[in-house]
Amino acid sequence: MASFYKDNADLQWYVDHGIDWTPVAELAEAGFRHPDGFKSTEEAVQFYRDVFELVGTFSAEKIAPVAAEIDREGVHFDAGEVKLAAPAEKIMKEVAKLGLHGLTVPRSLGGMGCPLLVYMIASELLARGDVSLMSHIGFCGGMAAALMFYSIMEGSATVDGTTGDVTTCRFDKEIKEILAGKAWGSMDLTEPDAGSDLAALRTRAVLDAEGTWRVTGQKIFITSGHAKYHIVLARTEPVTSTDDPLAGLQGLSLFLVPAFSGTGARKTWHATFDRVEEKLGHHGSPTVAITFTDSPGQLIGQRGEGFKQMLLLMNNARLAVAFESLGLGEAAYRMARDYAAERMSMGKSIDRHELIAEYLDGMRTDLQAMRAVAITGAWHEELSRRYQLARDHAAGDDDVARARFDKLHKKHRDRARWLTPLAKYQGSEKAVEMARMALQIHGGVGYTKEYGAEKLLRDALVFPIYEGTSQIQALMAMKDTLGGILKNPQAFVRRTAQARWRSLSSRDPLERRVAKIQSQSLAAQQHLIQRTATDKIRGLAGVPVTKWADTFLKNWDPKKDFAFARLHAERLTRLLIEEATVRILWGQAKRDPSRRELLARYLDRAEPTARDLLERITNGSDRLLGELSAGDDEAAQG
Amino acid sequence: MASFYKDNADLQWYVDHGIDWTPVAELAEAGFRHPDGFKSTEEAVQFYRDVFELVGTFSAEKIAPVAAEIDREGVHFDAGEVKLAAPAEKIMKEVAKLGLHGLTVPRSLGGMGCPLLVYMIASELLARGDVSLMSHIGFCGGMAAALMFYSIMEGSATVDGTTGDVTTCRFDKEIKEILAGKAWGSMDLTEPDAGSDLAALRTRAVLDAEGTWRVTGQKIFITSGHAKYHIVLARTEPVTSTDDPLAGLQGLSLFLVPAFSGTGARKTWHATFDRVEEKLGHHGSPTVAITFTDSPGQLIGQRGEGFKQMLLLMNNARLAVAFESLGLGEAAYRMARDYAAERMSMGKSIDRHELIAEYLDGMRTDLQAMRAVAITGAWHEELSRRYQLARDHAAGDDDVARARFDKLHKKHRDRARWLTPLAKYQGSEKAVEMARMALQIHGGVGYTKEYGAEKLLRDALVFPIYEGTSQIQALMAMKDTLGGILKNPQAFVRRTAQARWRSLSSRDPLERRVAKIQSQSLAAQQHLIQRTATDKIRGLAGVPVTKWADTFLKNWDPKKDFAFARLHAERLTRLLIEEATVRILWGQAKRDPSRRELLARYLDRAEPTARDLLERITNGSDRLLGELSAGDDEAAQG
Repeated sequence: MASFYKDNADLQWYVDHGIDWTPVAELAEAGFRHPDGFKSTEEAVQFYRDVFELVGTFSAEKIAPVAAEIDREGVHFDAGEVKLAAPAEKIMKEVAKLGLHGLTVPRSLGGMGCPLLVYMIASELLARGDVSLMSHIGFCGGMAAALMFYSIMEGSATVDGTTGDVTTCRFDKEIKEILAGKAWGSMDLTEPDAGSDLAALRTRAVLDAEGTWRVTGQKIFITSGHAKYHIVLARTEPVTSTDDPLAGLQGLSLFLVPAFSGTGARKTWHATFDRVEEKLGHHGSPTVAITFTDSPGQLIGQRGEGFKQMLLLMNNARLAVAFESLGLGEAAYRMARDYAAERMSMGKSIDRHELIAEYLDGMRTDLQAMRAVAITGAWHEELSRRYQLARDHAAGDDDVARARFDKLHKKHRDRARWLTPLAKYQGSEKAVEMARMALQIHGGVGYTKEYGAEKLLRDALVFPIYEGTSQIQALMAMKDTLGGILKNPQAFVRRTAQARWRSLSSRDPLERRVAKIQSQSLAAQQHLIQRTATDKIRGLAGVPVTKWADTFLKNWDPKKDFAFARLHAERLTRLLIEEATVRILWGQAKRDPSRRELLARYLDRAEPTARDLLERITNGSDRLLGELSAGDDEAAQG
Repeated sequence: MASFYKDNADLQWYVDHGIDWTPVAELAEAGFRHPDGFKSTEEAVQFYRDVFELVGTFSAEKIAPVAAEIDREGVHFDAGEVKLAAPAEKIMKEVAKLGLHGLTVPRSLGGMGCPLLVYMIASELLARGDVSLMSHIGFCGGMAAALMFYSIMEGSATVDGTTGDVTTCRFDKEIKEILAGKAWGSMDLTEPDAGSDLAALRTRAVLDAEGTWRVTGQKIFITSGHAKYHIVLARTEPVTSTDDPLAGLQGLSLFLVPAFSGTGARKTWHATFDRVEEKLGHHGSPTVAITFTDSPGQLIGQRGEGFKQMLLLMNNARLAVAFESLGLGEAAYRMARDYAAERMSMGKSIDRHELIAEYLDGMRTDLQAMRAVAITGAWHEELSRRYQLARDHAAGDDDVARARFDKLHKKHRDRARWLTPLAKYQGSEKAVEMARMALQIHGGVGYTKEYGAEKLLRDALVFPIYEGTSQIQALMAMKDTLGGILKNPQAFVRRTAQARWRSLSSRDPLERRVAKIQSQSLAAQQHLIQRTATDKIRGLAGVPVTKWADTFLKNWDPKKDFAFARLHAERLTRLLIEEATVRILWGQAKRDPSRRELLARYLDRAEPTARDLLERITNGSDRLLGELSAGDDEAAQG
């Protein structure tokens, strides 16, 4: 039987060797203390492996064969009701039967109790079959897990300190419904005038006389938005002026709003599905516009904390896009590779032609790089969340344990925060590139609907847009990176010196090459900081770096002063991706020499790219910024 | 009234200032000697300008508004007959009424007698409205002009030496039919097992007992292949072994094969339309598979010269793709620019956000660069063809005139040959990039069918595939460039010294920057030649460059020896494009200082790109070539 897990040696390497499952399994299994639970990491990992084999086979045997049909049929919207394509509906039933919706939900709530990382890897496997269906599947189990997490965080769930069982949960009913395949959730952020700019949201929630929250507003581009359960970001705080912070992100709260209740003849609507978007691709996944009108909702957590809480979903969703991209990229690569091995031209198969061979080699290498960043990012995200829960709940009154968990949480949180926008950016841009190359390698037949290459490209093109565009990821990565330097310039100076030293003196040539790229990334960061500084205060170039923070933290206008860094945000992000990738691959190569070949192969590609990006950042033209700044001045005067 | 000509200042600059119309108009108007013809270049150019205004308005007012509808409706294939979408049929009638099918056909044959360059610019204007419709329009007038040219070349037409009138023409009937909008042509090359590799064609033509050529075989991916008149490349020469040159390109001949004759009830079929491809885009243009079975055809020109003759159509088609790309690129740029000026985020319109501003600035600059290369290429191609005709026909017995025309023909032919693959590569790749950016700038709405950005990307994605893939263009450009060095190494050494000198000593900083890029391109070429040489004969690095040719022209295996250059063919081509662009823009800036701003703006982008490409060519890894070569050895042994 075909299996998308069994045929993927790189992915199996992670499961068998690459991932440090110990802390993940220990936390997921509450220290292996549950009488009916696994007794060791090995036992747990064997179960995860079984899950991957199950999902890998399911995706190859059941999903991939109907992907083209789902793409052609699309979704149906009739009399306010949304329906998936017939083969998609059938698959959703099988997914529920296999229990996959409960993958990350604790066993005590009816799930499988797997780590987030298992969910993410399963997402890659499903996405290789069909990414739009994977996306819809994600809005089942993913939302169930999120509701459980929110309940624990707000204190409305009880967790057994010994077994880790969640014995009660505020959203127990919703979670059970989702696990049974009878409902799913969606994440409702975007509005007609608020896409990347969430501070501009206008949907409102008000408390009525009976103490029920009533949500009113329109949300658009909602993936799987024909859901029963909507997690909605809405404005709750009255404001006095537009300068009021409550008019921005701080005035937002999170709600669980059912679009309807009951079924069949007893179905009652609380919201309206306005339309289903006609999209370029992702035809198996409905993208819905929904209007709430005094729709009753439940506040999740505290008022004003909506944006912060939403970040949990958003981070997961961004990491999930990296895994979707991997799945789609694998499909594109293998389709191109197999076609090129068969197609003859000028007396040999085209995979032996230098240009095509280089494209295929690049795709293979990029996939391994993407997987390294995505898995590492998800590993940190998982540990960040689990240590956070451990700190706030499992630690109980043990101050020492709490302090230890807090430290671990923060360590992993920072790394997850560093890698998440990089994984999202790298994955989505590379998936588009690979799908385009697969189409191009197929030549004329790639442009027809017959071979499926064009479908992959249509599906991939949404990756750089949804869950925060590539440009938003780049701005976030840039702000975090430069902000980190400002907060701790000494550490930055130390890192720079260390990287430089290793790039010159390490005995391992691979380590020298890795350190060189790190040095280039740090040099780019330094240039951006310095240029921002020089633009701000002429003559600061002479001020020692350790004094920058003082100068910076006073009297500055982030909108204007950071214009130079914003202009280079995507180039910086691409450089940060090269740096992150080679550092992660170097870590792997140190532990397992079989990974040295991959690192060397990746470095061959990363080195000219890093050099080029640094050069473009440090020697770019100032013309455009001058024009924009002149325009801003005009606007200010006009 | 909206006009795609009147709103395009860069294009108008070419028509009013940039293009040297004098030789073009003089040749097209036979020295202004026709009693009813134009009396001067100015008169002729005023007419061309009228054509652009007509076509620009027609495209903006009639085509663009129905482009989305044509895309949705697609083409119809029923009972062996192919029909365009209803609004497309309507537009085709109007195009015929306006006489546009005869744009480049001599007035003596019922056309407008415009130069090829006017046709190309008109193609840009039409493509901005809808590229698939433009493509179909191109297979009307373009084919009529080609038939006339073939007739003159083979001596089956008579041309009045004084007026330039074509008084008789073998294909008079076909041309008249096309001009009236009653028929059109197609160019039938590709077969199921012969795409980029035309030597592998299997369609055959044999002379029957009555002396009629009978064509048999299947042609696929034929644009506008539901044509009446098919120009078919077929194998005519019997071969004794697969090594026989006649088994390759030299065994091909060109035929005019009607797919049917008569109309309505009296329609007789000579070929079968097998299917119409379901494509990603280009929905207004049918892509047809056609089978010929003993179909009667007329030989065009001489047996065995089919490939050479086909190159005329192919060169024109490749240049046309560059102009199509311009039209689509303009549409994408303006759509993105207008959306970005309206869409607010974080308190300002997104065109004021640095990342988006840079994308828009890049699109604007790239369009001007593409237009510079495309127009210059088409200008040379036109003069090459016209001087060829002048040499072979107009010169009569005047040996001095013939020698002069021959020299001019060869000069322009070489430049056209240099620029054609560059214009095709640059145009098609940039059009895809720009359409993708337009989609990305639109965010979520770009991914829906509503705004049209996704349609532009779907349409653009065929450009790098049809009329020779980007990879084929790159291999051609590489072979021509390196072959040119081998033929005349002294000239190469001279060019290198001159570029270096100008890059250091010119008084104009822009000229220094242009010469620097030229130097980088020459350095890359030298490296590729040298690496090929070193790979071939160890120790040749010490041999003076003037002796390379001797060594090279003996005992070499182009398949193996040029592997290194083939690996870098696309990078070299991208570098050649940067070089060609800045040289052309520098020529413009010298004549017209108002173009200096464009050159400077383009150089800002070209400089890091050229540096990066040179670096990648000279410092790339050898791993992949080693792997391919090891594989070849294995295959040879196996």
